[in-house]
Amino acid sequence: MADPQVIAKQFTDFYYQTFDTNRADLNSLYRDNSMLTFEGQPLVGGGAIVEKLKSLPFQRVQHKVTTFDAQPSSSTASSMIIFVTGHLVVDDNENALQFSQVFHLIAEASSYYVFNDIFRLNYT
Amino acid sequence: MADPQVIAKQFTDFYYQTFDTNRADLNSLYRDNSMLTFEGQPLVGGGAIVEKLKSLPFQRVQHKVTTFDAQPSSSTASSMIIFVTGHLVVDDNENALQFSQVFHLIAEASSYYVFNDIFRLNYT
Repeated sequence: MADPQVIAKQFTDFYYQTFDTNRADLNSLYRDNSMLTFEGQPLVGGGAIVEKLKSLPFQRVQHKVTTFDAQPSSSTASSMIIFVTGHLVVDDNENALQFSQVFHLIAEASSYYVFNDIFRLNYT
Repeated sequence: MADPQVIAKQFTDFYYQTFDTNRADLNSLYRDNSMLTFEGQPLVGGGAIVEKLKSLPFQRVQHKVTTFDAQPSSSTASSMIIFVTGHLVVDDNENALQFSQVFHLIAEASSYYVFNDIFRLNYT
């Protein structure tokens, strides 16, 4: 399997750049059995997941990744867990929000899709 | 498979209670192929993982879980991802530290072991 850290860098760069420019395009990363738990709300399937992301009530958003870690999630399959911490800047708010997010990527052809996705804001 | 939310509650209660009373006992949760990435430092195997946890430079620690989320991590195997956010109180420090942590549990006999574990403090 490719180096998880390298994949994690490519994935997080692509994911948050796409999120911050056109959330609807994230659809390509999810499948019918993909799961997102967003601030405790469970969603299943790429359609429901992208509708949720599109419905978030801000016009502009910028994700700034502080740390990302990656580990292979199986001894036999090509899959990995990516764990991200960072800050979110939303619209004209001066105060960034802290977030953390975990992705479970599963290999498919020459790429990966998101099977698990859990997102939380971190409040002090 | 049992309800991941129920397992997640039992697991996180047990994990942090054990961590806060006798870290060495966490050895029972890890196997030779288990992975921990602790603040960016990768460790493999229950022995190395528990040595790292035992070496952390505090006498007393208390984990307070704020949120935990869980999802099955496979369509076929009995395994799950648990994602925790919370606060840490260390020794006599008045200020709690924010942390987030992801576990990947794999079924083994009638229980689970930790295959993946990633821990990060969240700094503002």
